Parts: sequence; C-alpha cells; structure tokens
Amino acid sequence: MARELKDLQQAYGFDDVAIVPGDITLNPELVDISTSFDGIKMDIPFMASAMDSVVDTNFAIEMSKAGGVAVMNMDGIHSRYDDPEPIYQEIAETPREAATALMQKIYSQPVKPELVGKRVEDIKKGGGTAAVSFVPASTKRLAPLAEEAGADVIVVQGTVVTVRHNSRSLEGLILSKLVDQLNVPVLVGNTVTYDVVKEMMSQGIHGVLVGVGPGAACTSREVLGIGVPQVSATIECAAARDDYFEETGRYVPIITDGGIRTGGDVCKSFASGADAVMIGSPFAKTAEAPAHGNHWGMATPHPSLPRGTRLSVGTHYSLNQLLFGPSSKTDGTENLVGALRVSMGYVGAETLREMHNARMMHAPAIKTEGKIYQMAGLGS
Amino acid sequence: MARELKDLQQAYGFDDVAIVPGDITLNPELVDISTSFDGIKMDIPFMASAMDSVVDTNFAIEMSKAGGVAVMNMDGIHSRYDDPEPIYQEIAETPREAATALMQKIYSQPVKPELVGKRVEDIKKGGGTAAVSFVPASTKRLAPLAEEAGADVIVVQGTVVTVRHNSRSLEGLILSKLVDQLNVPVLVGNTVTYDVVKEMMSQGIHGVLVGVGPGAACTSREVLGIGVPQVSATIECAAARDDYFEETGRYVPIITDGGIRTGGDVCKSFASGADAVMIGSPFAKTAEAPAHGNHWGMATPHPSLPRGTRLSVGTHYSLNQLLFGPSSKTDGTENLVGALRVSMGYVGAETLREMHNARMMHAPAIKTEGKIYQMAGLGS
Amino acid sequence: MARELKDLQQAYGFDDVAIVPGDITLNPELVDISTSFDGIKMDIPFMASAMDSVVDTNFAIEMSKAGGVAVMNMDGIHSRYDDPEPIYQEIAETPREAATALMQKIYSQPVKPELVGKRVEDIKKGGGTAAVSFVPASTKRLAPLAEEAGADVIVVQGTVVTVRHNSRSLEGLILSKLVDQLNVPVLVGNTVTYDVVKEMMSQGIHGVLVGVGPGAACTSREVLGIGVPQVSATIECAAARDDYFEETGRYVPIITDGGIRTGGDVCKSFASGADAVMIGSPFAKTAEAPAHGNHWGMATPHPSLPRGTRLSVGTHYSLNQLLFGPSSKTDGTENLVGALRVSMGYVGAETLREMHNARMMHAPAIKTEGKIYQMAGLGS
Amino acid sequence: MARELKDLQQAYGFDDVAIVPGDITLNPELVDISTSFDGIKMDIPFMASAMDSVVDTNFAIEMSKAGGVAVMNMDGIHSRYDDPEPIYQEIAETPREAATALMQKIYSQPVKPELVGKRVEDIKKGGGTAAVSFVPASTKRLAPLAEEAGADVIVVQGTVVTVRHNSRSLEGLILSKLVDQLNVPVLVGNTVTYDVVKEMMSQGIHGVLVGVGPGAACTSREVLGIGVPQVSATIECAAARDDYFEETGRYVPIITDGGIRTGGDVCKSFASGADAVMIGSPFAKTAEAPAHGNHWGMATPHPSLPRGTRLSVGTHYSLNQLLFGPSSKTDGTENLVGALRVSMGYVGAETLREMHNARMMHAPAIKTEGKIYQMAGLGS
Repeated sequence: MARELKDLQQAYGFDDVAIVPGDITLNPELVDISTSFDGIKMDIPFMASAMDSVVDTNFAIEMSKAGGVAVMNMDGIHSRYDDPEPIYQEIAETPREAATALMQKIYSQPVKPELVGKRVEDIKKGGGTAAVSFVPASTKRLAPLAEEAGADVIVVQGTVVTVRHNSRSLEGLILSKLVDQLNVPVLVGNTVTYDVVKEMMSQGIHGVLVGVGPGAACTSREVLGIGVPQVSATIECAAARDDYFEETGRYVPIITDGGIRTGGDVCKSFASGADAVMIGSPFAKTAEAPAHGNHWGMATPHPSLPRGTRLSVGTHYSLNQLLFGPSSKTDGTENLVGALRVSMGYVGAETLREMHNARMMHAPAIKTEGKIYQMAGLGS
Repeated sequence: MARELKDLQQAYGFDDVAIVPGDITLNPELVDISTSFDGIKMDIPFMASAMDSVVDTNFAIEMSKAGGVAVMNMDGIHSRYDDPEPIYQEIAETPREAATALMQKIYSQPVKPELVGKRVEDIKKGGGTAAVSFVPASTKRLAPLAEEAGADVIVVQGTVVTVRHNSRSLEGLILSKLVDQLNVPVLVGNTVTYDVVKEMMSQGIHGVLVGVGPGAACTSREVLGIGVPQVSATIECAAARDDYFEETGRYVPIITDGGIRTGGDVCKSFASGADAVMIGSPFAKTAEAPAHGNHWGMATPHPSLPRGTRLSVGTHYSLNQLLFGPSSKTDGTENLVGALRVSMGYVGAETLREMHNARMMHAPAIKTEGKIYQMAGLGS
Repeated sequence: MARELKDLQQAYGFDDVAIVPGDITLNPELVDISTSFDGIKMDIPFMASAMDSVVDTNFAIEMSKAGGVAVMNMDGIHSRYDDPEPIYQEIAETPREAATALMQKIYSQPVKPELVGKRVEDIKKGGGTAAVSFVPASTKRLAPLAEEAGADVIVVQGTVVTVRHNSRSLEGLILSKLVDQLNVPVLVGNTVTYDVVKEMMSQGIHGVLVGVGPGAACTSREVLGIGVPQVSATIECAAARDDYFEETGRYVPIITDGGIRTGGDVCKSFASGADAVMIGSPFAKTAEAPAHGNHWGMATPHPSLPRGTRLSVGTHYSLNQLLFGPSSKTDGTENLVGALRVSMGYVGAETLREMHNARMMHAPAIKTEGKIYQMAGLGS
Repeated sequence: MARELKDLQQAYGFDDVAIVPGDITLNPELVDISTSFDGIKMDIPFMASAMDSVVDTNFAIEMSKAGGVAVMNMDGIHSRYDDPEPIYQEIAETPREAATALMQKIYSQPVKPELVGKRVEDIKKGGGTAAVSFVPASTKRLAPLAEEAGADVIVVQGTVVTVRHNSRSLEGLILSKLVDQLNVPVLVGNTVTYDVVKEMMSQGIHGVLVGVGPGAACTSREVLGIGVPQVSATIECAAARDDYFEETGRYVPIITDGGIRTGGDVCKSFASGADAVMIGSPFAKTAEAPAHGNHWGMATPHPSLPRGTRLSVGTHYSLNQLLFGPSSKTDGTENLVGALRVSMGYVGAETLREMHNARMMHAPAIKTEGKIYQMAGLGS
C-alpha cells in the first residue's frame, strides 16, 4: 500500500459532548445572561426561528416581552396571505399524506410586498422587537420595505449562504451594500465555516447564524449529504469571530441556529462559543405558537426537492414555562433559562463570554432506561 | 507490557461522514454534472449495476435516454435464456424460502454465446448505449462477441478483481491484451485499494469500479470478513487515479459501485473522488426494472457459499422520477440528480472534479425520530 | 479553511472500558480489599449513598455490620420528620404522575435541627458507624450538632462543590475552618476535576467524592449539559490525589460516587483509581432499604428544575446477598464483593492500591443477545 | 487544569474490523489451510471447545474425521459420571429457571479419576485424536492418567491463566515440569497479553489459547469488568509469538478461542494472527453435539459467582455442513472452511501464515435491514 488515507476531522453534535464543571462555582442569581446585537439588547440570549410554524405577529410580541427576539419569516405565509389564520387552520386539518402537496401549493402563491410593512407595523404596535427575515433573492427588493416600516433587525437567511454566491449573478445581493443602505442591524446565515464567517463579517454585517443540517437525523444529510454537527460548527465559527475581533476590534456575535431541543443543548451552544441561540421546534410547542401544534421548515414546501415534513409536535407549555419554568419535566425540555443559569453557575461563568471558556469532553450520550443518580442540590 | 497494539486505520462509510458547504455557492443550474469514459459521454454520472434484477434490454435503452449508462450482466439470465421474461416471472412468484434454491438452479444453466450478440444488437436497435459485463473467467471467450455485435463498453467484473489473479492460471485473463484486442472502453472491477487501481490503470483499461462489500450490513462482511466502507474505498482509489494521472497524463475515471441508497450517498461519493456512481437497489425499484420489484445480487445463486438473497423491494417510482424528481419524499431516495446539483451548488463545485475537493467531516449519523430543522431555500 | 478544530478529550464511562488481566494471578482469598478514611477503617470499600431511598437508621446499622459505611442524608426526610416511616409509605403509595409534586411538597418542610443529633445517636446505639451528609449551605449550622451527638464521619455534598464557591458569599462555608472545628473525618464532593480535588485536599479534608452526572443517561446531561463519565472522572481525580500525596505525604482517599450498577462497574472504579465506591441504586433494591423498592435522588424534589424522578426499582435481595452472594444472577448485579475479589485475583492485585495499576482498554460494550462464552473456572 | 487524561488503547472485536482484499487474488483451491501443533497435524485449523455442551466421545471422533481436533473437558460431566447421557437428558429437560441450580448440583459431584483414561481410550478406539483439558488445579493429578491412556494433546485451561499464579501456592502447577513430564503437546490458556504469552512459551508449552471475556456482551465484562475483544487480544498475542520465534527459533502456535460465530469471525481471527481457532457455540448447534441443542460454559455452574447460563441454541446442521457446506444461509453461519478459503483467495494468502499479513481496517459493523449488494462471483 502506497498511501495512507488521512483521518477526517471529527465532528461533534450536542449528544457527543458534555460540559465539565469549573474550578469555581456561582449561585445562579449571580449569572448575567444578557446579550446584544449592535445595540439591540436582549435580556435572554434566545431567538425564535424564522419559521411560519413558530412566529406570527402575536408570538413576536410575546417573545419580546420575555426578553428575547422572534424573527418573522417574510418569504412564507405572512407575506403571501393577508390573513394567515385560515392557512394555519388548513395545514392543521390536512392529513399527513396530503400535507407536503398542500404546502407546495400554499407556498407557490406570490409574495405581496405590501404585507411586509404591515407585519412590521403590527409587531411594533404590540410593543415587540420587529425582526424579519428574507432569503437572499428577495432581500434587495423587500428588506427596504421592512426598514421603512420600522423593523429593528433584518435577517438574511438561506440554507447555505456565502458572500460570494451573490456576486456571481448580475442581480446578486451584495452584503456590504445592504448594510450601508439599511440603518438597522443585519444578521446573515446560515454558515458553518471559518472563512465564510470572516468574509461575512468583513462586509460589515452585525451577526452570523450558524448551522447547516445540524441534527443527526436532519434530512439535509440524507438528501444532499451536507450537514455539520452544531457543536463543531459553533466552535469553528466562534474561532472566526474571535480572530476577526482581534484583528479589527469589532465583536460580531454568532447565533447557534438549529437542532437545539433541551437545556443541555442550549448550555453546550454557549460553551461552544455562541452569543445567542435560535430555536424552532421547542417554540412550536408553546401555546403562543401559531400553528396549532404543528411544525415545518422552509425546505418542506420545496417544489422538487422537499426536505423535512409537517410534523405534529403538539402543544406542551406556555412560552414562559418553556423559558423560565418551573418545570415538571426532568428531561431538559423546560425551563431553558433556568438551566442555563444553573449550568453557568456550575461552570463558574459570570457572563456568556466566560461560558465560552467552559471545558468540554467528547462523551457520547447513550440512552439507557431506569437510571437515577444522586444530585444533591447546589446550595439549596 | 512490552508492545503497544497499533491502531487500525479508521474506515468511513456513507453514514459516517458529512459534506461541509464551501466558501462560495452556486445556483444549481450553473453546475455541470457530465462525465465521460474514453469518449463515451454521459450527461449524468449515473450507471445502473450489472444485475439481472436491474438491467434488461428495455431498461438499458431507457437509462441511455436519461443520459446515463446501464450495464447488462452477461453471466446471468440474459445470456442463458432466449426469453428472460418467464424466468423473471418465476422468480417473482416463488416464495422466499424456495428462492435461493431456485436461483441456484436457474443460474446453473449454461451460457449461450449467441445470446451475447443478440442482447447488444437489441439495445443498439433501441438507441441505447450497449454496455455489457462479464466475469473474468468468461471475458476472453465472450467479450469479443459483444464487441463484434457493436457493444459500446465492456465491463469485466468480479467481487474482487486484481491484475495478478489472472496471470496465475494458464488460461487467465490478461487485461492489457484484452484492451489491445477490443476497440471499446474497458471498465474493470471491483477493487478498493491504491496499488490494485494503479496496476489496473497501467494495463491500459479505461475505468475502475470501486467497492467490495461496502455496506455496513453486507453479507460479505459476515461470511468472509471482507469489506471496505465506500467513502474510504473511494478516497483511496481516487488517490491512485490522481497519482496515475500525474505520472502519465492519462485520466482514468473511477466509479463508486455499491451501497448507494440516497442522494446524500451519491453526493458523498463524488466528494470522495468518484467520477461516476453505479447504483443497483434504487434502480431495481423503478417501474422500468425487469424483476417486478425484486432484487438480488450475483452472489445470491452461488452454489456453495451464497451471499445475499432475493429481496422484495417493491416498485416505487419511474426511472425519471428517481433521477430527476420532482420528489414527494424527504428522505433522499428520489431526485438523485437534483440532489447532486443542489449539493454541488452548496459546495461551490462547478464540475464533478471540483466536487472532489469538497471538505468532509467524520460525523456519524444517528437515526432519530421526529426532528425537523429550518432549511430556508437557497435563492428560492 | 484557516484553522482546524481541536479534538475534544475523549471521556470514558463504565461501559466504554474493559480491564485486562495481569501478568500474575491470585486466588481471591489472598486479596485484601479493606480501606480507611483518616482512621475510619472499612472491611469492604463500599459506601451507601446519602439518599433517602437508600439509608435510614436501620440500614446504616446493617451496612456497618457488613463492613462498610452508609451515609445518612441530613437535608431530607430524616431531618424534617420525627417519624420518617409514614413519609416513605406515602411516597410508595402515590401514583407516578403525582410523585414529583408530592416530593416537592415533602421536601419543602423545614429541617428540625434537633433531629440531626437524634439520628446520629440512634445509629450509634445500634452499633453503627454514624456518617451523615449536609449540603454546603446547611453544613456550618448543622454539622456541629452531628459531631456533638457522636457522628463518626461528616460528608459535605452538593451536585458540584468547589472550594471557591463558598468564599464568595459572606456566610459561605470555609472548608479549612470546618475541618479545624470538627474532630471527625470530613468528606467533600462532588467534583470531577484535577484542580478542584487538589484545592479541596489542601483545605485539610479527608476524602473526596467523585462524580457529576456520571451516567450516560443522567438527566444532568440533558438538563444542564454537564456531566463527566465516571471512569474519566476517577482517573483525573486519582491523578490529583497521587500528585498531592507526592507533594505533601498525605494520602487523601477518593470515592467514586454515581452510576455504579454491577460488579464490573465496581472493579473498573478501582482500576481507575478509586479508594472506595459509593453506591445508591443497588442498595435501594435491598430488603433493608427504607423506601419499599422505590428510589429517587436529591435533585428530584428541586422546586423549579427537577432532575430525575421517583423510580420503582423493586426489592431484589438482602444486603448481604448483594454484597457477598452467593449469586443466582449472571449479569453482575449480585455478589459485588466476590466479583471485586475475583477480578483483583485476575489482575494480580493484592490490595486496592495495586488495583489502581490495572491496565484498561477502550472497548465499548455492545449489548448482544444469546451469546455464551467458555469461561473455565480459575482453580475451581 | 493541570494534567490531561491519557487516551486508553483502542480495542477491537470482530464486529469492529474488516479485512481488505489483497494485491493479488487466488482461486480458493490453491489455498492451504492446514496447521499443526508440535507434530499434531490438522487438515483444517478448527478446534472444538472443551465444553460439555460441545464435545463428547462421539463428537471428538467425528471432529477428527473432519480434519480438526475436539477437546474434551475433563472437569465436567465426562469425568464425573460413568454414563453422561442421562445427565445431558436431565439438563435438556429442566426448565430455564431451574437450570443454574441443577448445573451447580451436577458439577458438585466428585471427579472419578478412572474415567479420564476411559474417555481417552474410547476416543482413540474410534480413530479420533484424543485431546483433553484440565483446569490448572487438577492438571498435576489427572493429566498423567490421560497421557498413560494414550492422549494426543493435553490442554490446561482456566478463565485467566498465568505462569506465575501457579508458583505461589505450594502445590501449584509448574508448567515447565508438566511439559517435561508429559510426552505429548501441551496447550495452555487462556490469556490475552504479550508478556504472559512469552512467559508461557518460555516454559516449553506447545500452544496458547487466546481469549478472555472476548464477546461484547460477555458476562465476564459485566460481572468482573474483565475482558479483551478478540481481534486485539489475538494481535497482541501474535506479536508475542512472532517475537518469541525470532528470539528462539521455536514457533509456538496460538489459538483464538471465544466469541467466534461466523465465517467472517474465523477469517478475521487468522488475519489477526491466529494459527487455529477454537469454537464452541456453532459446534453446539450441530446434530453431532451431545447436549440436544443446549449450550453452557464452564463458569455457568460456579457455586457463588456464576457467569453465563444454559442456552437453548437448537440443532441447525450437521458438523460437515457447518464446516464444509454447501450453505443455504447467507449470514456466514455455515461453510466456515469454504469461507476461509474464499477469503484467503481474495486476500491473496496461500497459507495461514500469509493470512496473518492481511490488511485490516477499523470499520464498525452497523446492522441494517433490507440491504443487498452486488457481489459478482470471483471467476465463477
């Protein structure tokens, strides 16, 4: 044999790692979990995903009240239909077999530009932070309408976004121009690699969404072969952010987006370097979510290559219970904020940036039944 | 303890790796997925396996129309029976318990040399590319008959083929002689190792089939202990191809053959270095396949050491739907060509050769239920 | 790509490793398994966890007779209720759905300081070693009461305990002061890291409990993301103990606490460097345990972030049968002392300290059914 | 953090590795699979385990006719009962729950020394190779009786055997003396480590049995924490054999013993360095085996720490079908000799010693259903 195969880089997902407690510990009350994006201050570092099954006007307002930010998807139901409620109803009532076909029909309706401003205004009227998302192809046309209407944050989001895709076509989106044109923070994603993060940041944008096909069972992995487990993606992108900060003095936050299900996943995201987390599925299960206990992604209605499907996830808790507890569950699915505070206390991290230095180990989780462990309370 | 055990080289299968998106991205329309073998141009880099359950005359013609190449097995039903249809019928109607015995009987009938030319002519008459396969032992006698009848491609194929096996017996097949004698491209396989690929190429052959017991559950692994996961096999053989090209200036394509089930597997094959993929099982499920929803391999009828069995795989889609969609499935089993285009777009690969440079990570897939992820469409 | 992600340190749990037999072997009778903590001699290196479902007065006495030590939890039922029996009864009779709420209510009752001394006296009266545990917050107030009543060992225990947590708040617990104040051995935990172990030992304490969220399925992993598999935790803490011993001449034992289910787990704990093991669940299944076949941890009744739940584990054996056999089971769940002796014999370790040098390999257990292996008896 | 944990050595079992085909290939007929132990020639390198459920007089004779060697256990039924058949009957008829207790009773009967010679004579009378095994404690007393009666091979076997265990007690077995005293080959085991193998060989013994708790699910792992996966054990012991051969010029074969279920496992044993394999469970399933489709190990009747249990494995095939086929199964459980020949052909190994050089990869098997792969026959 002439040549050895080189080992591929090992990638880590949430279930592959564990956080190690720190040398000092803190009472959870001493922990500061606030974060901010170019002036947009968040009391809690949680964002709700730009998915139709998660965010409507009301949810955006409630999420703002809770201290976070919800992003409304401006390429879906809210920009295509004056009244979204009957659409949600129809989706909820359609049997599983017919759901994908229905989705493909619903999302083939044209976008009505005038609805963009209306949604922004309604959120602002309700006292919410108006964060809205566009795919790259519609950003140039629609993002200015959102800004005019008073949007606080613009999100440019596709499955995989790079700086140089846009420069290839004549009508491509040039991020640096967009940033110059808009007077609000611009978040861009998704990406998972060092070089792309640095290129994006050099365009002047204000935040990067991290995550491409992150879940172990993500259909992007099955359909396209593409996907990077979230812990590895976050560690790599955080390295780019830190290097960019060192080189320029400008700190551009990154948001771990995708695959987060539990408090443990949230904590590991921050230990990997995240400045905020973006969550979909758990929010879709709140009573405040618009889709009546259903959940689907933006790739579900793809006309020729759908990925993911409409899932019935049920309605499990209020938004406040999900975020702040008290929890009646012991599997980490509730009281995400409380879990983050306790975890940071065990790590000894006073701020999210200190949490970036938490030690982690490669410790794959093996699901076993019927185990119980002694966990005497920390100072309680 | 005196001596440490050395670590064995880590091998990767499709489910063990994931592709990382690139620094630039492309719209899928900009991607060129054509490939060629010594003058045989293919619009799509897909070959259908030389298996009786996949390729008959009609399937070969339809596959050619779709832009690919189907290889007809000349050591099976088509060279032993004037009329294959009743044989397929009998196999389909036989209960599972009796299937292996029936197979052993069917494949014990003698080959009729005159049928070789007839099959080639029929495929040509239908406008198809006539690609036919022989095991090494029958190649010298039968391959010339195929060439005379107008065959476009000759495939010499066994479970494991090397250059030097054949030189050991008096009547052994000498690949260099075969290549000199025939005026059509000769593809040879299967193999999985660097040295054998280079030795084969130095004989003048025009393509190498890569894959020995590739699947995690392959019975070659259980019966013989032999098998190499496909990603590792392809990476190693691609290294041999690249080195051979550098040394000689002749580029000899390799075809990843075996274990491919999804679009993701196809994409990972090219990211590992494949110039084309050869697929069996998914094609056996097309309406155009001859075996009425059944599938078996060439080792199934082995008289004393059968590996694999006749499986009822069902009929799921048309050939065109499998290759080009639109897909109604979200598990990667349909629209394989569309998946390859989108994946190459995310990687930023304009050609298959650029796709060879895609970054991959070791990211084992863990099957989980009920997950959904946000996958906003790329420019759509 | 500019920067490679660094590999995370690999962590090992019990199921990930196997012990390798030694160069010499011993008959089990020749093996010495005694251990001691600053004068407290134990014939067998087994401690029972400070869990209400494991240790009451009677169990503590029986465990002492068996040669080990049971730790009574002084932040639970025994320090809140004059008569614990009706509480155990109520917990046993409550249906699963209502169990967590009941727990939260039961544990919200105030601690009665006078009960601390009473429990100690009762254990002493029965001839037992009186070992009692407190969470850090209640130690300063209650531990002296236990010592006055004649306690033999004081355990300060929380999910994660560090030396420097306590120094942050005005009324914090200062371990060195506590040790000076009390005239009995003080054990502290839990921790899993080198630095914390050395800091603790430098405070003068007499033993360290090792283990944070050790089990693969531990809910601390899911809720907080925190947890270190026990083999790795023990190896790391044992390294700290050995270095501290080398630097100071004082040998401070460590106790592997959590996740132990079988004789194999016990043996691996010692091979990893433990001086004793602390076990909960297997003891909860003894006829001597107070909770009528139920089991729960101290984090179960947490008011806002409960982890773990009340499990019905059943009553399987007497304490003596669990520890000394004879066993009728072949899965390692009985005759833990016998298993340790035989295993040390195969390793050739005459003492527990020699067992620390046993060679281990990374050999993940894969559960398979229906296998049987020849295991001719050693000298029998 | 002061000190990094060191990585444990990775251990490999049969399911963790795969053999890579060689640079040349051979027709299976050209392969020589004979082996020998100090003059005892074996046409096939297969030994039957010294287990009561596998070998009685008749089986030993039939195994010899097939070209291998069966070892009769002289610490079990055959040396305790004049007529073993009613004992086998009783074991077969006892319900599962009562089986272990019955075993403990049956094996508590005393050994009758006169039966040792009788069994040897009966095997010889039938034309078989008489190979008999003793635990170390009974070897000194009983082995000479076997030799006097004409035994061809003496096996000294315990779960873990070392040279230096025996020298510790006054009446201990000294291997070098035993070898001097007996005029037949002496095989000793089991062991799994380099140093012990070399020490044993330096005592003059003629073969080493390799394997301690080899299976992933072996109860030695659960009960004692001890066990080494077979591929790693064989690689390490083969290194000792090769070094000993280089140093002394004496080649002492090693036998991989335990955990072998399929042809693939057999092939991997030789690729790891084995000179022969010892198999239990598959032989217990032959019509020639004495236990009516039942199977148990020598540790099953242990009076206080039983490991393994009586399994009903069924009767599946004749001994000849198991060894030589033809096979009707495709899972590797039949035609073990044929599988070895074909596998060696693919590797290009003409002899077992050449098979030791086969390349292997770390390629964990993942069981998946419903896959089929093309495996065109090699020259057939």
